[in-house]
Amino acid sequence: MDYSLIIVRYGEIGLKSSKVRSRFERKLVKNIKSATDCEVDRNQGRIYVFPKNMENTLNKLNKVFGIVSYSPAITTYVDDIDEVLEKYVDGLLEEGVLTAETTFAIKCRRVGNHDFTSQEMAGHCGAIVVRKVGCPVNLSNPDLTIFVEIRDDETFIFHEKIEGPGGLPLGTQGKVISLLSSGIDSPVSTYLMMKRGCEVIALYFDGEEFSTPKAREKFDKLVDALNKYAAGVPIQKRVVKYGDYLSHCKDEGPEKMTCILCKSGMYQIASKLAEKTGCLAIVDGSSVGQVASQTLANILATRDGCDFPILSPLIGMDKLEIERIADKIGTFEISKVSDGGCSAVPKYPETKADIVRVKQAKEDINHDEIIDEIFKNL
Amino acid sequence: MDYSLIIVRYGEIGLKSSKVRSRFERKLVKNIKSATDCEVDRNQGRIYVFPKNMENTLNKLNKVFGIVSYSPAITTYVDDIDEVLEKYVDGLLEEGVLTAETTFAIKCRRVGNHDFTSQEMAGHCGAIVVRKVGCPVNLSNPDLTIFVEIRDDETFIFHEKIEGPGGLPLGTQGKVISLLSSGIDSPVSTYLMMKRGCEVIALYFDGEEFSTPKAREKFDKLVDALNKYAAGVPIQKRVVKYGDYLSHCKDEGPEKMTCILCKSGMYQIASKLAEKTGCLAIVDGSSVGQVASQTLANILATRDGCDFPILSPLIGMDKLEIERIADKIGTFEISKVSDGGCSAVPKYPETKADIVRVKQAKEDINHDEIIDEIFKNL
Repeated sequence: MDYSLIIVRYGEIGLKSSKVRSRFERKLVKNIKSATDCEVDRNQGRIYVFPKNMENTLNKLNKVFGIVSYSPAITTYVDDIDEVLEKYVDGLLEEGVLTAETTFAIKCRRVGNHDFTSQEMAGHCGAIVVRKVGCPVNLSNPDLTIFVEIRDDETFIFHEKIEGPGGLPLGTQGKVISLLSSGIDSPVSTYLMMKRGCEVIALYFDGEEFSTPKAREKFDKLVDALNKYAAGVPIQKRVVKYGDYLSHCKDEGPEKMTCILCKSGMYQIASKLAEKTGCLAIVDGSSVGQVASQTLANILATRDGCDFPILSPLIGMDKLEIERIADKIGTFEISKVSDGGCSAVPKYPETKADIVRVKQAKEDINHDEIIDEIFKNL
Repeated sequence: MDYSLIIVRYGEIGLKSSKVRSRFERKLVKNIKSATDCEVDRNQGRIYVFPKNMENTLNKLNKVFGIVSYSPAITTYVDDIDEVLEKYVDGLLEEGVLTAETTFAIKCRRVGNHDFTSQEMAGHCGAIVVRKVGCPVNLSNPDLTIFVEIRDDETFIFHEKIEGPGGLPLGTQGKVISLLSSGIDSPVSTYLMMKRGCEVIALYFDGEEFSTPKAREKFDKLVDALNKYAAGVPIQKRVVKYGDYLSHCKDEGPEKMTCILCKSGMYQIASKLAEKTGCLAIVDGSSVGQVASQTLANILATRDGCDFPILSPLIGMDKLEIERIADKIGTFEISKVSDGGCSAVPKYPETKADIVRVKQAKEDINHDEIIDEIFKNL
């Protein structure tokens, strides 16, 4: 089929005030340009992409947040509809999308003044298809729907509606610090906040002697995978050398509390970085009850003293649901490779941290001072 | 079919340490008893439910968190398998689940010592079915799978695996305060935290002269709907009279900031209630960028000074995804009924709250004092 452009539809943006909407639309156009390297046009609540390579562009649009659906289409003028529709039908026949047995419907939408109604035009176009192919009309549950959209004189014909990733245009919702490890969960939480329009600084804590180079390698690969969704607003990476702090926690802190002190330190450093870089929130992959460290008591204790909101989009999800998203977005394959895990984890980690005892432990290990020191060296 | 029991499978619990697992299993058994009013047995990582009314019990199990799947089954002894399987097949034929054209497979699992392998038993049972019905075996992609599970001498036969709601047993993860309004989002966030095992206190802010009795009525109905998932650990309701505070915000505070001060007050009152009732977190229905008040800047400003973690399971979801869950759990029908909304919302609500100016506004309206007063009267 010889498509000339792609019609892009967007969703929630439509609900905003006209000022906000205009800002969102401009950002979406910019992100699409950056993702596809194509010419992009915006007109009356629609975005039109003029692809150099159709297949490639369709794949790229699938990863631009804010897009609800999109359709490869041909354009023509109202006067030429008959001829162009016949050609379009030829294309469908060639591709095997339409046969004499396919039930079909024509859906017509109009913007502007015309001397025919939408229904009349649909009937007219339907007759052309029946005459040419002899296939049966079925308005309620057709195998194939051909859409004819008329905007003043300009006319678009298409039959595919490809689902987009949804969400809001990346970069419209401000910046966040996302704690990104080499595991399964944090790439998914990062993805979900990107989907809701947040620009991301990905913060990795390198456990050094308690971790492996493999883990660090996986972090880099995960950022690459997520960057496929970040055209126009790429993820920034920051790496914290965290081995000394972990040694310190193990040597000076209560044995059970290593994970609590570790997580608490992560939030503190993320807060400082948020402040410095103009981020408005911290994102992490917590999910209640999934592992030892994710009890409500531990969440309360580790978040104590953190000045920024900590957003945990996975907090109410099951592991299986998280894995399903990871699989869909292409991070599961990377995360699931074994990297040895963290060797600083004690045999019996605290599962019911007491906030007073955590405060005491932090004082005992000079937590604030060391965290300051680490942050200075970041 | 004359089933004698229901086999219940649970998921993530299996990952926990044996002590935690045992506690989770006991809680799940208790919740199932409470939901179904049936006898329930626990043995070797399985739960068995003995229903008085099969249909009714199956429906109830669908709303007990922690259950991954369940199967109505018949029991017999190994020596009687042939005879009982023939009867089971008769039942399947009668129900039309099995015909001479149905492709089928037998899956056999064994625990204990037997003088046959699982594969041998599957072959033996398969031969019985073929001889009786003449239907074709298909091991890779059958229309119907009949499961034969042998545990020592006891044998279970079943063919259905009904999907459960997943999650963790309600009440295993401590208590939370959930801000529940009459809208679409907050029942879903409440549901998701219940699903992860959290006991809920539902906190409703009655806007009084700025709200309608309809809204309050919807809150009650929403709690009833959610309580269908809360057998054994019902939701507690708390209602805060909030009209005076809203008047005060409108009269004394900056016009644009009514929603900011309102939300901020909600979190403060929820914190106090959490402290008093032994809750460990606050839950709300925030989703970044969905409405004017849910910008990252506003989230930061309204959460300032709240001592408890605020968990927002919808924070990374699109409105459509939230509505889909609401529909599935039965709250959408209730929420979508118009209740007039909140009349305290200003014409141009703040969308980019500045934390310093919010602090100032709070001081100007004697926020802390009034919140204390409201809480005393709760």
